[in-house]
Amino acid sequence: VSPDSLLERLRGALVQGDESALHLLLAGLHASDLADLLEELEDPERARVVGLLAVDPARAADALSEMEPEEHPEDSLAALPASQLAAVIAQLADDDAADLIGELDPAEQDRVLATLPRDAAVEIRELMRHAEDTAGGLMTTELVAVRDDLPAADAIHEVRRQAAATGQRLYVVFVLDAAGMLRGWVPLEVLVTAEPAAPLGSLALPVPAVVGLETHQEEVARAVSRYNLAMIAVVDGSGRLVGGVTFDDVIDVIEDESTRDILGLGGTSPEEELRGGVSEAVRSRLPWLYANLLTAFMAAWVVYLFEHVVEQIALLAVCMPVIAGMGGNSGTQALAVTVRRLALSEGDAPAGLLVKELLVGGINGLATGVVAAAAALGLALLRGADPWLAAVVLMAMWVNLAVGGLAGALVPTVLERAGVDPAISSSIFVTAFTDMCGFFLLLGLAASFLI
Amino acid sequence: VSPDSLLERLRGALVQGDESALHLLLAGLHASDLADLLEELEDPERARVVGLLAVDPARAADALSEMEPEEHPEDSLAALPASQLAAVIAQLADDDAADLIGELDPAEQDRVLATLPRDAAVEIRELMRHAEDTAGGLMTTELVAVRDDLPAADAIHEVRRQAAATGQRLYVVFVLDAAGMLRGWVPLEVLVTAEPAAPLGSLALPVPAVVGLETHQEEVARAVSRYNLAMIAVVDGSGRLVGGVTFDDVIDVIEDESTRDILGLGGTSPEEELRGGVSEAVRSRLPWLYANLLTAFMAAWVVYLFEHVVEQIALLAVCMPVIAGMGGNSGTQALAVTVRRLALSEGDAPAGLLVKELLVGGINGLATGVVAAAAALGLALLRGADPWLAAVVLMAMWVNLAVGGLAGALVPTVLERAGVDPAISSSIFVTAFTDMCGFFLLLGLAASFLI
Repeated sequence: VSPDSLLERLRGALVQGDESALHLLLAGLHASDLADLLEELEDPERARVVGLLAVDPARAADALSEMEPEEHPEDSLAALPASQLAAVIAQLADDDAADLIGELDPAEQDRVLATLPRDAAVEIRELMRHAEDTAGGLMTTELVAVRDDLPAADAIHEVRRQAAATGQRLYVVFVLDAAGMLRGWVPLEVLVTAEPAAPLGSLALPVPAVVGLETHQEEVARAVSRYNLAMIAVVDGSGRLVGGVTFDDVIDVIEDESTRDILGLGGTSPEEELRGGVSEAVRSRLPWLYANLLTAFMAAWVVYLFEHVVEQIALLAVCMPVIAGMGGNSGTQALAVTVRRLALSEGDAPAGLLVKELLVGGINGLATGVVAAAAALGLALLRGADPWLAAVVLMAMWVNLAVGGLAGALVPTVLERAGVDPAISSSIFVTAFTDMCGFFLLLGLAASFLI
Repeated sequence: VSPDSLLERLRGALVQGDESALHLLLAGLHASDLADLLEELEDPERARVVGLLAVDPARAADALSEMEPEEHPEDSLAALPASQLAAVIAQLADDDAADLIGELDPAEQDRVLATLPRDAAVEIRELMRHAEDTAGGLMTTELVAVRDDLPAADAIHEVRRQAAATGQRLYVVFVLDAAGMLRGWVPLEVLVTAEPAAPLGSLALPVPAVVGLETHQEEVARAVSRYNLAMIAVVDGSGRLVGGVTFDDVIDVIEDESTRDILGLGGTSPEEELRGGVSEAVRSRLPWLYANLLTAFMAAWVVYLFEHVVEQIALLAVCMPVIAGMGGNSGTQALAVTVRRLALSEGDAPAGLLVKELLVGGINGLATGVVAAAAALGLALLRGADPWLAAVVLMAMWVNLAVGGLAGALVPTVLERAGVDPAISSSIFVTAFTDMCGFFLLLGLAASFLI
């Protein structure tokens, strides 16, 4: 059954008020597929379906937690009556509950939190304090952690008890000492095959990495990716285990960070939701275009300075797009490689990197400059212009591609050091620079040698 | 201890042949960190360290499987004596073993496979048959799968036995019927908390998604990301469970695909390893620059057609970079959004998308065109040129940004439908198009209305 026809049948059943057809339609769908259906609906239809789902709070919770944040699942949550609301939130993982409730306005937050048991409300308030893009904002506190002096046989019972209590997927058993400090972890396959009398501490493996509450999500993702962790431990300043971030949240982070980098390099901001409409796209892109317009004016101003040269040798206007465009391409290549390298932390020393990009740009500038110069020579001979135009084109191409490569590596490196996301604004600076530099080289050299 | 000083101390101990210092240095490092050290070394040093590690085959296997493929860990593997080689391979996950052995030349492959037990060799040969970027190429066959008629208590014993036999991380217990068909899965937390007598079939949840042996890795990643699966089942044509792909391999796929998209949009190919040197970068980028040069010649040719116009109104050369650059930016914005949308399969119907991008480009073209026209008017008044230059600039900007938006959405959509990776070659076509279109509009309108 295609999603579209499902949606149509759902709408039909809603219009006719056919409750049994509705239940039949909704039953058997995976939470992620239910979430897609909810995203397609608008209130009040959506609120009605969430109301129907809330009969099974676990299912409603799963579907709500799978919805895209920009679809505002929290609104559907807030529309439920208090008793159902509490039941659904109790079934949400604590990190999902904190994310959803955090999106409500403060008065609504208090109303929703008031429906919960005191402990749960305190827990969720605590989670809501952490910034969304930190380990604290991503983590769940519902994990399985066992004392290191427990024998394996007892530990299995304890794991069973805790797993049933949290109701979350079980990936990892953390091992704590008497003070609650993280001492290691036990893979499940080790736990279930261990000597019953072996103390858990003797089975524990060192955790290859931990993160702090304030660790940025990119660094969390890097550690999880590097060490292949299903759940990474989050510890407080004193090394006490306070939560864990699971691989599925890390996959979302990696996808979001890549979206941010790709849209940033393309000259629009991640605030433009990929599903957004015309007005979101205009709002997100227009500021970048105005910034670009400013840099385009600067490039135009360089041409304006040499207007008299163009007036005398109009063939230079023919060469302009070649020099500027190729320099921009060289810069964009170095930029893409550098931004990706920074994102994956594949670091050479930056100094070595800058030299490399200057060299690559220079070699490529010479290789393509020779072809462009040959074309310029042909054109000059054809039109009876000064054949030294070819030499000017060669020099301008060569230097512009070299400095383009350098700028492409330098700009994001400097932005990163300054704490600015290097993907977001680099491309404007780099292409502005190669445009200005290209025109200055071409027209300046022409002014010196051809007139 | 910083990685650099570790490396220096390792090299020192290697030179002095200080075996106890070497063992001390290598002990206690995580496999991923060991892999980094190995990547920094060159043969024969690397082969010596792998030889030292091979005393503990499990550790050597972990370190080799964490090395980047382009560092050719398989060479270190092949340098081991036969008995150690077999011991190390026995400790590799079967998918990692297949990947490593698959990189050797055929004669070496036969030598290595001959050191293995017949069963394992057949298994690995089977895995080596699948393309690397398919589910078959990513999967492990070492998974835990239990018959649906087994009571939970017996199933726990069976899971324990299989987990010990595979030696792999345990994430998921698959449930099979008597014919080996996949019937569902049991989360570990359900298994360990179940009634001992409950048949496994009654505990099984439906798997939200399966993939086939030939399913492309991007689609595998989408399913894992969508349904938050620690391991996704791979089934053959008849629905029999043949393997599983784990989240950590999926994270690698997602990162590789993003790298491919970012480098593709930047105009270089993923074959340029991010860690590569100058010659790899030149080899990877130069073909793109030549392709770009060809399109730059086409843009230059448009200017050439209107050379007489530029000769009469040199101010047009000042406007050229603004019109072309802004059109390129509009196209690149639409391109980045479309490529990312295709990668994440956030589909509107393509037709709606094209209309949206045309509209967004048109609105932004008008908004920025008015500013550019005001600047052109000022310039024309200052220089005593025809003030209608402003109208020409407005029209050219408006149309160029609109068609730029359309081209940015259209080109990757068409490439995707034609089975070509939309990230790789789109940017060349889009900016070539906006350059040519921009010059044609500006100079053509000027020829019609200003001369």
